[in-house]
Amino acid sequence: MNKKFEEKTLSSKGIYKGRIINVKIDEVQLPNGKTSTRELVEHPGAVGIIPITADNKLIVVEQYRKPLERSIVEIPAGKLEPGELPEVTAVRELEEETGFGANRFTYLQTIATSPGFANEVIHLYIAQDLYDIEEPASLDEDEFVELMAITLEEAEEMIADGRIFDAKTVIAVMWMRQNLK
Amino acid sequence: MNKKFEEKTLSSKGIYKGRIINVKIDEVQLPNGKTSTRELVEHPGAVGIIPITADNKLIVVEQYRKPLERSIVEIPAGKLEPGELPEVTAVRELEEETGFGANRFTYLQTIATSPGFANEVIHLYIAQDLYDIEEPASLDEDEFVELMAITLEEAEEMIADGRIFDAKTVIAVMWMRQNLK
Repeated sequence: MNKKFEEKTLSSKGIYKGRIINVKIDEVQLPNGKTSTRELVEHPGAVGIIPITADNKLIVVEQYRKPLERSIVEIPAGKLEPGELPEVTAVRELEEETGFGANRFTYLQTIATSPGFANEVIHLYIAQDLYDIEEPASLDEDEFVELMAITLEEAEEMIADGRIFDAKTVIAVMWMRQNLK
Repeated sequence: MNKKFEEKTLSSKGIYKGRIINVKIDEVQLPNGKTSTRELVEHPGAVGIIPITADNKLIVVEQYRKPLERSIVEIPAGKLEPGELPEVTAVRELEEETGFGANRFTYLQTIATSPGFANEVIHLYIAQDLYDIEEPASLDEDEFVELMAITLEEAEEMIADGRIFDAKTVIAVMWMRQNLK
């Protein structure tokens, strides 16, 4: 890994250990020798799945996002369990959130969502050759989502009117624009 | 705003008030009447600028990102000051991080980076008709960045080898792919 302008950790103070995130403050030595502090959110990482149907529709879910105090339309996604391979998470979350399996998963890209304050990365996969799972595993009991299959045109409309605006789903729609004709 | 599956706040507990982020835990009432908790990171929001030179290069900065413990290549970006309009932040951050002004700013898109746990949004702007500012405002004293102007081909290479992988910069490169020929 490139360590240019590395900030060496002088000390680290735990602030919060939560169900999903941990928060800590590191005192760091800057490249010029001075010190500063960095507020850091630790997140287990996640996957996002871009499920494309045989007729080139994108499967999305509408759900309430408490941090934004509104519901938004997103690609299916979910957090990595400890030690879990992202490919396994992708299969599990696709099933739980949509009831679909996929015969073809293709790795697209890993994105860092908020490199200024969080270590969260999302591994993105394209899921194709979808099939219905007869008795799919269900969502976590505090998850409520509504499933939709949308065309590229409908996705563009949802970007224009703000229903789609999270980074991973914007990337999914840009991917459709470039790859589905 | 769409409030489908709304989670009503029953109580809210402040965990941490920091320099950049605040952390709180909300107890919420779910659509089925049960209760759950949500860990929430409050962030002031940010802008990202996609500066395009006359010969269609993208201006990027390499910087160390403590949460990721590595340096990455990103579009210029920065946080909103309290009450500041994003357009103003965009002009300021472009000057501070690159020494460039732009005669043409075009709003592209606002993205939510981590809707599962944070309210951070990034307002993205295209900056064109760039010019050198003679004595540009300088960076914050704990910021160290290296400036580069890269072609689309070089940007694609940087995505392939992982030097570029944060969400806003991936979106910038996808935008170049679609709009610069």
